[in-house]
Order: sequence, then structure tokens, then C-alpha cells
Amino acid sequence: MKVLDDLWHFAKKTRRLRLGPVALHYHFRRRAPLVSNWWLQRQQQIFRSLVTRDIPSMQTDSEFCSERAAAAPLAVIIGAGQGFGFALLEKLAHQGFHVIAVARNASRLQPLFHQLTRLQLKVTLYSCDATDEIAMQRLFNMIEQQFGVPDLVVYSVQYFSPGRAMTIELPAFEEGWRNNCLGGFITARTAGRQMTARGQGSIILVGSTSSLFARADHLNLAVGKFGLRALAHVLAQELWPVGIHVAHLVIDAEIDEGVPGDLTRPKADPAHIANAVLYLHQQPQDSWTCEMDLRPRTEQFWQHC
Amino acid sequence: MKVLDDLWHFAKKTRRLRLGPVALHYHFRRRAPLVSNWWLQRQQQIFRSLVTRDIPSMQTDSEFCSERAAAAPLAVIIGAGQGFGFALLEKLAHQGFHVIAVARNASRLQPLFHQLTRLQLKVTLYSCDATDEIAMQRLFNMIEQQFGVPDLVVYSVQYFSPGRAMTIELPAFEEGWRNNCLGGFITARTAGRQMTARGQGSIILVGSTSSLFARADHLNLAVGKFGLRALAHVLAQELWPVGIHVAHLVIDAEIDEGVPGDLTRPKADPAHIANAVLYLHQQPQDSWTCEMDLRPRTEQFWQHC
Amino acid sequence: MKVLDDLWHFAKKTRRLRLGPVALHYHFRRRAPLVSNWWLQRQQQIFRSLVTRDIPSMQTDSEFCSERAAAAPLAVIIGAGQGFGFALLEKLAHQGFHVIAVARNASRLQPLFHQLTRLQLKVTLYSCDATDEIAMQRLFNMIEQQFGVPDLVVYSVQYFSPGRAMTIELPAFEEGWRNNCLGGFITARTAGRQMTARGQGSIILVGSTSSLFARADHLNLAVGKFGLRALAHVLAQELWPVGIHVAHLVIDAEIDEGVPGDLTRPKADPAHIANAVLYLHQQPQDSWTCEMDLRPRTEQFWQHC
Amino acid sequence: MKVLDDLWHFAKKTRRLRLGPVALHYHFRRRAPLVSNWWLQRQQQIFRSLVTRDIPSMQTDSEFCSERAAAAPLAVIIGAGQGFGFALLEKLAHQGFHVIAVARNASRLQPLFHQLTRLQLKVTLYSCDATDEIAMQRLFNMIEQQFGVPDLVVYSVQYFSPGRAMTIELPAFEEGWRNNCLGGFITARTAGRQMTARGQGSIILVGSTSSLFARADHLNLAVGKFGLRALAHVLAQELWPVGIHVAHLVIDAEIDEGVPGDLTRPKADPAHIANAVLYLHQQPQDSWTCEMDLRPRTEQFWQHC
Repeated sequence: MKVLDDLWHFAKKTRRLRLGPVALHYHFRRRAPLVSNWWLQRQQQIFRSLVTRDIPSMQTDSEFCSERAAAAPLAVIIGAGQGFGFALLEKLAHQGFHVIAVARNASRLQPLFHQLTRLQLKVTLYSCDATDEIAMQRLFNMIEQQFGVPDLVVYSVQYFSPGRAMTIELPAFEEGWRNNCLGGFITARTAGRQMTARGQGSIILVGSTSSLFARADHLNLAVGKFGLRALAHVLAQELWPVGIHVAHLVIDAEIDEGVPGDLTRPKADPAHIANAVLYLHQQPQDSWTCEMDLRPRTEQFWQHC
Repeated sequence: MKVLDDLWHFAKKTRRLRLGPVALHYHFRRRAPLVSNWWLQRQQQIFRSLVTRDIPSMQTDSEFCSERAAAAPLAVIIGAGQGFGFALLEKLAHQGFHVIAVARNASRLQPLFHQLTRLQLKVTLYSCDATDEIAMQRLFNMIEQQFGVPDLVVYSVQYFSPGRAMTIELPAFEEGWRNNCLGGFITARTAGRQMTARGQGSIILVGSTSSLFARADHLNLAVGKFGLRALAHVLAQELWPVGIHVAHLVIDAEIDEGVPGDLTRPKADPAHIANAVLYLHQQPQDSWTCEMDLRPRTEQFWQHC
Repeated sequence: MKVLDDLWHFAKKTRRLRLGPVALHYHFRRRAPLVSNWWLQRQQQIFRSLVTRDIPSMQTDSEFCSERAAAAPLAVIIGAGQGFGFALLEKLAHQGFHVIAVARNASRLQPLFHQLTRLQLKVTLYSCDATDEIAMQRLFNMIEQQFGVPDLVVYSVQYFSPGRAMTIELPAFEEGWRNNCLGGFITARTAGRQMTARGQGSIILVGSTSSLFARADHLNLAVGKFGLRALAHVLAQELWPVGIHVAHLVIDAEIDEGVPGDLTRPKADPAHIANAVLYLHQQPQDSWTCEMDLRPRTEQFWQHC
Repeated sequence: MKVLDDLWHFAKKTRRLRLGPVALHYHFRRRAPLVSNWWLQRQQQIFRSLVTRDIPSMQTDSEFCSERAAAAPLAVIIGAGQGFGFALLEKLAHQGFHVIAVARNASRLQPLFHQLTRLQLKVTLYSCDATDEIAMQRLFNMIEQQFGVPDLVVYSVQYFSPGRAMTIELPAFEEGWRNNCLGGFITARTAGRQMTARGQGSIILVGSTSSLFARADHLNLAVGKFGLRALAHVLAQELWPVGIHVAHLVIDAEIDEGVPGDLTRPKADPAHIANAVLYLHQQPQDSWTCEMDLRPRTEQFWQHC
């Protein structure tokens, strides 16, 4: 398998083909096909129906997936596959949101999905690469057609591979920026355009310690997170007047991902961070927050990644 | 009257009397006697009883003033005489808090006080100069004895007299710092000591644009507000582990003080800012905020005083 | 010509070709071939010799180009084609540096080059795209072989196309980041690796107002400049102990580019900014600066791009 | 002696005497009489002349003290009694400045003074409390009459007594602010008024790590240093247009005070920091710095007091 790994590593690097006065730049990326659980389920149902000769119940399916409850606000979480995004999804669903959970590989979320849908909560999963503009546009178009314009969009992707600036490889550096910053831009712009037409909505960009402090060994996190902060500030000044609440939530904490027995240091309950997202979303228009930080009370300040 | 004004201006300046190797520094200040409405009412009752020969009903009095409802949390607002402090007082009272409102001259709050007490809300007024350590200690001792240790303390004093650094007078510069920063320290230390014993409580220090940006013409505000921010950060790092939530709320906004017809620029509803104070007070211990900003969505960023 | 423009615009966008589980991402870029004036001159000489049948004088050529004066420190300026880089080149050459000037299109610098070489000053020009890792590595290898390890490297590329976040195109956004930040990383890493072996050298990254303030209409500048600042802070903490002085010079000013009659607003003389670069380079090791700002005395603070 | 200490401690606390509607606030301070070495020497000379019956040589005296060399620029250092101020004094004198060294207790500087005057360098000592407005005005008037308007004024007083916010005493808190901030304001205003008339001059305010980071145990340093930073920013925006260069020099370092054998951690040579002061003073008017930091290359960032 090491041969394949090396080959893949080789294929990921950007290469150039000189063609006279221009050059073709290219590299390979893993495809994160835009797949919704709606289609997965449909496939499973069709498969099951083929096996059991049972006609799939369209009603049930559409009930929790392709239709949005009239009163339910719509939330989209980009980066739902990670600790905090995962908990945010659960929290918002319990609060009555119809939640669209987007992850690079949403299949990891299937168990949660089944658990939530059993509780009659509205959750839809999509696999989509947030740094892929075309896929994201298609995703948001699909969301708008099926469920409407989102009320709340959270960008919670974090990519961190520690390393010294002198040894870090360029693809890792670029990949850090693409996930920590570019994906935030694509998300905010795609969602922002839909929300502008409606004149309302919230876009929360999730930062970390490295959004404010760029320290040794944190290069490919800090460059992206500093950029995401710049993005949040610019967007706030451009979109608040339109009615869209852009905010930057700085999580200076380790997030409790439920690993049992791990009591080495204080952790923030992701459900409580989700509360902060909800609070920001619900602020009245004359008192909006652009930036706030969060950490456990027993935590040291600004020591996280 | 100008003679008296000049005389008072003259008396406020710090003077020195040389006494060999030491010097006596002195100046005059207006006395802000520590007076609670409890005493004012008692005096009125006694006065009324002398006139009407009716025995004052101690029960009624103690019911809404000298006793605290068992379940009611206790909030102390320093600087309740100003726009935001005033609205915060109202909001917290309506939210079920027993509110101690402290102002340099609490008599201005009497109309509100009567209005709120008619609604069966618990409000107690005190006149006290927050920059006077001895008076503040006496005040918090009195509060503890009568009502217990406060759950929430807000320092919302703001002193701003615009002026160029070259022409500003030293007493105005010192007075700015004393009100914007020293009073915050005295408040936080006095309340913090009481809260430390209990291991819980919230202290919210209210900042402004000048907490982060020191611009021309804002000297005596910025020096104090920068200092208050430093105070908030130090206190957070020292008191969070003890269980006391210190936070710095940066209000980058003009606060709506209800002047009718004034629509020149966007204003923040003080009741909504009060919501932010409540939100900070109610955050769970694993997700505390140290600093957040607030402004209306149609407001320019960082252009206020 | 509009057809060609549109075609080029079309070709610059990143496209994907799906190949099963992976995707090939590609786009076209203008080639910035790594060409030194040394070669240009050689070509001219050869051409001239073919025409005039005169044998090119290798001595003359190598005198000012392929050999470095023993005592002359070596400076590399990335982004020498722009206002400040241009003046820095002149200043450093006059200060006795052998200057390697690198620009995307160095041919624009030919007039200056001829002027400086006539004055017996040592200047070498290279065309190179700073965001192209392979080309930059080749460039620095070539520099090392011909002239040695640089003493001072300045990254002074700035890319700014104003625009609203909602309308800006993705290639422009990425291009902004690539020029304002990625090129700085590639420069610092390539130079830093050479300097690490020697244990000395200075790397100055040039920032602007948007390095600290992310305002409306400045998205594609601010995201890159925030990132460059993060890069500078990380590099300083990683490379100072090795002996390499990384510093971030924030130019909050319009730079005087010598347009006659343009007196609309105060401008910084680029030769004076060059002084600041020299000062940073010459600081003793026990008193290094990581960040400093510069602006004319009559300029408003933090109002530039 | 402990009785005297306690008595003095008691006398330093601010007390109030109630006088009807006003209150007299008073406390005792050690007198820092405004004494120049010129007078000390005159006294010594008179004393010597009484003893030796020798007439004091006015020429010698005035040569190095009461007259300023025509070409020599004039520097005033407030806080010359401390490590960095002391070295700055030496450096500036060697650079040809006539240096006025002001310390709370200038007698400690006598040995240096004699050493420098033996080298024909121009140094004048004054004892003066920088937080005493009247004394400082008198000092700067005296300087102007004797030597002219200063070209360079440096405020380098630092007062730090570590301690927790809950236990620190109010006089220590106020004293911290008075020394770290108020003295800077009095210095800048007094010098700034003189310089405004001339339309030139530099005022350098010296900050530390606590100017930017307010951490546990650093309360009475951080509150003053944050305030001094606000002061520097306001003054820069108000005085640069007049021609006065106000700058904030952040020393994030331990300063080498020449204690032999102390090699525990990296230290900044105060002569090199003095270079930075000189550099700031000599910047051309179109490229002024408002803020820069300094630390040894082997030092950790932002870990000092």
C-alpha cells in the first residue's frame, strides 16, 4: 500500500506543463462527490425493494428529507464531520432546525443521522468538498430548490497539521489555507448571495486560538485562520447593512469529543458552543456581535491550536 | 454663580503642601454620600408618621427592600444613572433579579424606582462614588448583610470629555481614568472578594470603541478604557479558575436613550445590550466568553467614542 | 482582442476532470520564465557578435553580473517591479549591496538596470513568478551558485483588486492570496533554508494597512496580508533562534512613485522606507524588531489599502 | 524602624475629610525636590570655597552645565535612574547630545555623571517626580530657559510590583498607573507644548510586554502600560501633523543591567535599545513609525513583564 500512498502523494503536488507563453498547472485531488443521504437512502430503498420486492414509501422519505417543515428554520453546517460540527448538528436539530450537514465524507455521519431521524428530527446529509466552488454552488442551489434559503450557515472546517515552516510541504501549506480560509469564502459567498436576496440570515465562521496568535509549529493553521478572520471582518462590514449577520466565533479551547476517561485537561462541551452559535443567530439587529471568544473557565488563555 | 464655579474648579485641582521630606497632596471632591433609598423611604415614612401619626408599616418596607426574595438572583449595577445602566436595571428587574442600582447621584433614579416597585419588582437604589474605595467597601458590606453576595455585578460607568491632549487639564485626565478604570478595579475587587468565598458570580466590565482604538480627541476616554480592558483580561485569568466569570463587553454603538425624533444614526436598544449581559452571566462554565463586541447592523465599525 | 481576453479569462479558471475516485484540477497561467539579465545580455552580445563579428567580452560581463564583489552583501528583492521594490533596489545598490531584483516581468526594469550598471553598481535582474515553487527554488539555487547565500531577502509583492466579497471572482481571490501570502511563504522558505545553513540573514516581509485592518472592499488584499502577518510571526519564532531575522514592515502609506504634479495626498519616499529595511537588517542580535509600521507624519492612520 | 515604615504606609493612603457637601481628599507622598546637579555643584563649590577660601570657578561650571553647545541636540530622559534609562543617557551623550537626565532620585546617578563629565560629555541631572505636574512644568521651563526646547524626550519610567488583583492595595494600584501612565502624559504634554511652538521634536514612550498582553499577576503594570499605549496612539494622531514624532517602543525583553555572571536568560543590551530610540528620532518626516517592538533573537515572544 505504501506504493499507492507515495503515488498519491506524488499526484497531489501541483505540476506545470509549459505551453509556449502560458503554462498548464495541474494536480490531483480526491473527489468528494456531492452526495446527499437522500440519494443514498433512495438507492438503499431501491436496492431493498429489489430484494424484498417492497415498494419504497415515498411519503416517509420525503417527510423527513425532501420537504422542510413550514416553521422549521434551516441551518447548514459545513464541516459537520468534526467534533464541534457534529455536536452543533445535534443541538440545532433538537432546537427545531432542519439541519443540512455537509462533510467531506458524510458517510461517517450515517449512524448519527439514523439516530436523529428516529427521533423525528430533520437532518439531511451531503458529502461535498467546501473548497470546490462548483460543487458548493450546486449544493446550495440544490438546498434552495428543495428546502429554501438557509437561515443559518456555519463554517466549521479546521485543518491542522503541525510542522515547522522550513519543513512543511507546499501542498500541505496550500491545503491548510484552502480548508481553513478558502472554503469559508466559498461558503460565505454562495450562502451570502442567496441570503442577500432575502435580506436576512446568519453566517458564523469558526476560528481558533491561531486566528489571533501565530506561533511556532502552527503555520498552516495560522495562515488560514488569520485569513478567515480577515474574511469575517470584511464580510461583516459588507453584509451587515444588507441584513446578513456575519460573526467570527473564536474557540480557544479543546472540544470534548466524548472520548471516555480523557480527563487530562479542561474541555468545552460542544453543545455549549452550539449555544453560542444560536445566541449569535438570534441577536436582534441593533445589537450584533462581530467577534467573541470561548473557553472553559479552568483553561489557560490562548494556548490552544 | 460663575464665582462659585471658578472656586470649585480651583478646589478640584490637586495641591501640595511641603512638609520637610514629605508633601501633603490634597484636593476637594463633591461628596457622593452612600445613601440607600431604604433610608430615604424610612425617613419619608417617619416624616409621614409624624405628620399623619400613622405607624409606618415595617413589613411592607422590608418586603421589597430589606429582604431579598429567596429565589431571586442579586445583581449590582454600578453606573445605573446612565443610559445603558438604566435600561439594564429595568431589564434585569423584569427578568426576576433583585437589582441594586448604584449611581453617583441615585436621586435621579427615583422615578424609575417608584415605577418598578409599583410593579412589585425588587430594586434598591444607592448613591455611591465608585472611585471611593472606602464607600464602595461599605456599600458591598451593606449589600452582603442585607441581601447576600451578588450573583452579577456590572460596571457601566463612562466618563468622556472630548479634548486634545495638549489642552486637556490634568484633573480631567485623572478624573477620566478614575471613572473609566479605577472604579472598575474597586468594584471588581470588592465584589470579587465576596464572590471568591462563594466560588461563583459574574463581573461584566463595559467597554467602548475607545477600549480598542485610541484616536485623536479621545484621550481621557481611551486611557481609562484601555486600562479597563487590561483589568478585564487580568481578572479573567485570575478569577475564572475560582469560579468568577469576568467578561469585557465592548459596545461599539450609540445607545438609544429614548430621545424622541432623534433618527440621525443607528442606535442600539439598551434592552438588547442587557440581553448580552444576561447571556454572558448565564454561559456554562466550560464555555465562557472573555470579550465580545456589539453594534447595530447598519452601523460603521469602530467609529464611536 | 476582447475575444482573446475572454479566452484567457476562461483559461485561468480552475477546472476539474473527474477520473473515478480522484479529480484532475487544472488551470492556465501566464508563464513567467526564469530569465536573468545575465542571459539576456549574453544573448544580446552573441547577437551583436554575430552581427558585428565582435567577440563578446566575458570579462566585462562577469565583472558586473556573474561575480559578486567579495565584500558586497547580497540582497534579493522579490517584487522589484513595483514602486517600493524599485526604489529599494536603487537604495541598496547605492549602499553597496549586490542586488538581485526579481519581478514577474523583469524586462520593465531594464532601463534602471542599465542606469545602475553604468554607475558601476551591482544589479542582476531575474524574471520569476514568486508563487511558483519550482521556479523559485531554481532561482535561489542559481543565486547561491553564482553569488552565494543572500544576506537580505525582501518580499514586496502586493496584489490588490478592490471589490465586494459577493462579486469578486474566485480566481481573483485565490490570485490575491497567492501573491500576497503564498509567494511570501515560498520566498521565506527557500531563502530560509539557505540561510539556516549559514546561521544568519534577514527576511523582511512587507505588509500594508490591510495586514491589520480588514475593511469593506479590501477582501482579496486583507486575506493575503493577514496571512502574511501570521507567516511573519510564525517564522520569527521559528527562525530567530537559528540566527535569521524575520520582520514584518507595515507600510500604512501611499508610496511616492515619482508621478510629477500629484500632490493630492502625503506620500512616503520609497528611499526612506528602504532605510527602514536597512535598519532592520542591521539591528544587533539582542535587539531585533518583529513588527513596525511606517507612514508620513501628515497622514491619517490606518486609512490605506 | 518598623514603626516608621508602618506610619509611612499609613500616611500614603488617601483619606477623606467630610466638609458638608464636599470632601477633602489627601495623602502624603515623599517629596522629590526638583534639584539639578548644577545647584548641587554650586553648593559643593560654595561649601568648598568656604572651607578652602577659594572662589568657585564660574567658567568651569557654566561650561558643562548651564550652557548648551550650539550644535548639540538636546535630549531629556525621564526615568534615567533605571537600567535602560541609564544606558540611554550614556549612549546619547556619546552621540553628541546634551542629555538632561531626570530621575526621582538623581543622586544615584552622580557617579555616572562625574564619569561622563570627565569625558567632556554634556550631562545635567535633575531629581524630579514625573507624576507631579507642577514640578515637571517647572523643570521643563528651567530646561527651556537654560538650554532651549528639547529635541528628544524619552519617558522610560516603569513601576512593577507583581501581585494578584484581589490582594493588591489601592495605593499600589494607583501608584502603578501614576508612574506607568500619568507621568507619561505629564511629560508628553509639557514637552509637547514646547515642541509645538517649534514644530519639531520627538517624544518616545517606552512600553513593555504588558503594553499588549494583560496577564495574571501583572495588574498594576498592565493597566498603566495599556494606558500609555493609548496615550501614544492619541498623541501620534494629534501631534504628528504639528511636526512632533510620538512613538511607542515596546521592549519585550529583559534588559542587561550589567550584573556579572547572570547568564540565566537572554538579555537586550540597553545601548542597542538606545540605538532604536535614536533611529526613531532620526526618521524622515514622510516615514515615521508609531510602534515597534524589540527583543533578543533567542528570546521567547511576549513572556516578559
